[in-house]
Amino acid sequence: MKNENDSLIANDRFAKYIGIELVRAQSGYALARMEIKDCHLNGVNVVQGGALFTLADFAFAAAATADGVATLSIDAHISYFKSPQGKLLTAEAREIAAGRKLCHYQVDIFDENREQVARFTATGYRRTVK
Amino acid sequence: MKNENDSLIANDRFAKYIGIELVRAQSGYALARMEIKDCHLNGVNVVQGGALFTLADFAFAAAATADGVATLSIDAHISYFKSPQGKLLTAEAREIAAGRKLCHYQVDIFDENREQVARFTATGYRRTVK
Amino acid sequence: MKNENDSLIANDRFAKYIGIELVRAQSGYALARMEIKDCHLNGVNVVQGGALFTLADFAFAAAATADGVATLSIDAHISYFKSPQGKLLTAEAREIAAGRKLCHYQVDIFDENREQVARFTATGYRRTVK
Amino acid sequence: MKNENDSLIANDRFAKYIGIELVRAQSGYALARMEIKDCHLNGVNVVQGGALFTLADFAFAAAATADGVATLSIDAHISYFKSPQGKLLTAEAREIAAGRKLCHYQVDIFDENREQVARFTATGYRRTVK
Repeated sequence: MKNENDSLIANDRFAKYIGIELVRAQSGYALARMEIKDCHLNGVNVVQGGALFTLADFAFAAAATADGVATLSIDAHISYFKSPQGKLLTAEAREIAAGRKLCHYQVDIFDENREQVARFTATGYRRTVK
Repeated sequence: MKNENDSLIANDRFAKYIGIELVRAQSGYALARMEIKDCHLNGVNVVQGGALFTLADFAFAAAATADGVATLSIDAHISYFKSPQGKLLTAEAREIAAGRKLCHYQVDIFDENREQVARFTATGYRRTVK
Repeated sequence: MKNENDSLIANDRFAKYIGIELVRAQSGYALARMEIKDCHLNGVNVVQGGALFTLADFAFAAAATADGVATLSIDAHISYFKSPQGKLLTAEAREIAAGRKLCHYQVDIFDENREQVARFTATGYRRTVK
Repeated sequence: MKNENDSLIANDRFAKYIGIELVRAQSGYALARMEIKDCHLNGVNVVQGGALFTLADFAFAAAATADGVATLSIDAHISYFKSPQGKLLTAEAREIAAGRKLCHYQVDIFDENREQVARFTATGYRRTVK
C-alpha cells in the first residue's frame, strides 16, 4: 500500500523533468540516480552544479519524508570535488542526526566509476511529528 | 562583439532546459529570472529547492565569468526563507570579495512581490588570471 | 532597565574569555569588536578561524536575541576572504529574513583598515515567540 | 623527529588558550579533545558554538596539514545537533576528498556519552604541493 510520502515524492515534477529516478527510500536513507544527458550540461560541458544539487536534494527529501513526516528544507550546502566521468550519477542520502523538530542529512554523489563528485548536507524542519 | 564568456553562459543547456534567462551580467554582478512553471514544482506544489539553487548558481556563474575568467564552483550554500508567491523569480548575484584565485558571491532570490525567498552564497576558483 | 537578553549576552563566558566586546545591539542588528592579541593566533600567526567565527557568532546571538526571544543556532557558515591587518576586528550582524520560527542572519567581519576579512551566515530557531 | 607541521599545530595559541588537545594526527585524519570548563559556556550555560567550531577547526587543520602541506581554510559549515552532556568533547576529522589544490573534510563532534553534537565540514586550499 502506498502512503502519502510515496505520492509526494512521485509528484516531484522538477525531479521528473530533469530525469531523476528514486531507486530506494526508507526512513533515514535513500538512493537516487540520474543518467547524464545533454540537457544537464553547462557551458563548459560538465554537469551543471544545479543538476547535482537537485539530485542530492531529491534523495534527501525522499529519505527525510520516508516515515511520512512532511519535511521542509531550511538550508543546504554542497561542496564539489571533481567533474563526473561516465554517464550515470548516483546519490545516497543518510541521516546524520535527528531531533524532535530538526533532521540533518548528508548526501554523497558518485559518478559511474564510483568516484565521489560532491558532498551535500542539509537541515530539515519536520512539520508534523507523529 | 561577443566574448568567450557570452558563449559559455549562452551554452548552459541546463539553465536553458529549465527556463532561466539572463537579464544582465557585468563583472561582479548579474541578474537572472525564471518564470515559474509546473515543471519547477515539487510534490507539495512549491518550487523545488533545486530549481531555486540552479537559478542562483546561474546568476553567480554569469557574474563571476563576466570578465572572461573561467570560474569553477568550490562550494555553495543556500538558506530558504519562505515559499515564493506569484509566477516570477529573480536572482541578483553580487561579488562580496575576490582575491587572486578565489571569489565570493552572494545571490538573493526574490519572488514576484519582491519578497526575498532565499539567500545563496558561493565560492569560486578562478582558473586563469588575466 | 536591563532585560533578560542583556544578561544572557553579558553572561557569555566564552565571548568574555576571548575578549569580545558588544558595542551595540538592537533587534536585527548588532556590532561587536575584538582587539587581536597573541592568544587569538594560530601556528602561522594569523587570527585562528575559530576566533573569527566566535566573534561573528556572538554578534549574531546579540542581534537575534535583542528582542528578548531565546534563539538557538541551527547552522552557520563562514567564508574567509583575507588575513586581517592591524589590531582590531569588528563584526556587524544583520537580519536577512525572519519567519515565525526561523531567523536568518549575515555577519560581516572587518579588520582595522575596514577591509572585509570574512562573511558568516547563520540560521536561528526562535524558541519562544512573543 | 618533528616536522614543520608538528610545530604549526603546537604553536596554535588560540587552541591552547581555550584548552584543546591534539590526541592524534595523520594524513587525512585527526582526533582532538577539549574538557568543558566554565570559560566555554554561553549565557544559557551550554558550550558556545564558537568553542565547538574551534575544536572542529583545529582537528581539521591538524589532519589537513599532517603531511606537511600548508593548508588555508576557504570556508567551513557547522550544523548543531544537540547540547553536549558531560564534561568532555572529542572531534574526529576525516578527509572526504582531495585534489591537487583543494581538500574537503568532515569533522564529527561527540560528547562524553558518545552522542554526536555537531557536524563540521570545511574546504582547504593547499598552498604548496609536495
